[in-house]
Amino acid sequence: MKNKGKFISFEGPEGAGKTTVISVVSDRLKEQGKEVVLTREPGGIKISEAIREIILDNNHTQMDAKTEALLYAAARRQHLVEKVIPGLERGAIVLCDRFIDSSLAYQGYARELGMEEVLKINQFAIENTMPDLTIFFDIDPAEGLARIAKNDQREQNRLDNESLRFHESVYKGYQKLIQLYPERIIEVDARLSKTTVIENVYKIITSRLM
Amino acid sequence: MKNKGKFISFEGPEGAGKTTVISVVSDRLKEQGKEVVLTREPGGIKISEAIREIILDNNHTQMDAKTEALLYAAARRQHLVEKVIPGLERGAIVLCDRFIDSSLAYQGYARELGMEEVLKINQFAIENTMPDLTIFFDIDPAEGLARIAKNDQREQNRLDNESLRFHESVYKGYQKLIQLYPERIIEVDARLSKTTVIENVYKIITSRLM
Repeated sequence: MKNKGKFISFEGPEGAGKTTVISVVSDRLKEQGKEVVLTREPGGIKISEAIREIILDNNHTQMDAKTEALLYAAARRQHLVEKVIPGLERGAIVLCDRFIDSSLAYQGYARELGMEEVLKINQFAIENTMPDLTIFFDIDPAEGLARIAKNDQREQNRLDNESLRFHESVYKGYQKLIQLYPERIIEVDARLSKTTVIENVYKIITSRLM
Repeated sequence: MKNKGKFISFEGPEGAGKTTVISVVSDRLKEQGKEVVLTREPGGIKISEAIREIILDNNHTQMDAKTEALLYAAARRQHLVEKVIPGLERGAIVLCDRFIDSSLAYQGYARELGMEEVLKINQFAIENTMPDLTIFFDIDPAEGLARIAKNDQREQNRLDNESLRFHESVYKGYQKLIQLYPERIIEVDARLSKTTVIENVYKIITSRLM
């Protein structure tokens, strides 16, 4: 079935400020009369939430990188089938906070499983449902982590405990992806004021997809 | 690293009587002075047990077949890394009740995801650790299910509730695998007396691997 909607994913280092920006952009799109599905994996999908609990459990220190990659792909699949695809079929704009590129950057590049290998298992999971547009929030990983550290409302999980070196490697992974998919992935400077970032993201979405 | 041990998997329809047979064969191999690791997925591995709970949860009726296949591959990976490979590296005989062929027959064939597709994600999970030998317990699926129905100690899970038609399709999947891997997969007639099946399985293992 051909999807009538638009699928937009948002990527970037931890602490890049994606969540707030996406929320405001979603409201503005709705004011324009668009149906918007604002989501993030695991997106309230019961099965995906259960999978995510396993991934983030601080007791699971034995978790192998490939196990982790397969679990992310499984959670992604279920969220896609239950939430993203139905939204696209209704003609909605689906805004998704993190999607396949996170797996390619985190597991493929930073955990050194290989981007192509991780792409393969994700292609099994998502088939042809790739984002029409991906917005990358560009910020130095150290600056992003410093922002998170200031925000004590956010509980630390197994992945937050990774070293700065790991997060720098994730960032390099994203740079590779931007080179590989220049048509799909657009960068925004996430160090600018929130108002400016919101404006820039909104402009990219409306000019590219409407 | 080259594994010094031997990896033997056991496959077949539900109710084929694998568990009892493998247990007795394991004891006999130990009496011969061999180190034996007797296991089955999830094999007591904490992360794999948690994954399996998600798969078998009777509330997860929305579970997509690809999500299920990815979860099995994830649980398999962790069990392999924590239990199977360490055993093989020590030089043990690892007896594993169900392995990759179950995914190929259940998800690949019976759920119609395609054996090649399911093989790919499992190759990601297991890399080169394929069984040296696989013993297929041959029994008509209806007969196997009738045996299970008599055994009220076994709690019914989400997969037991599948129709006979599904289990017949699984059986056909196994027949395809036997054709594809005639060197690796050896059939035993599981309708014979338990003593005879044990004898036959023991003979196959000792003649093929010792």
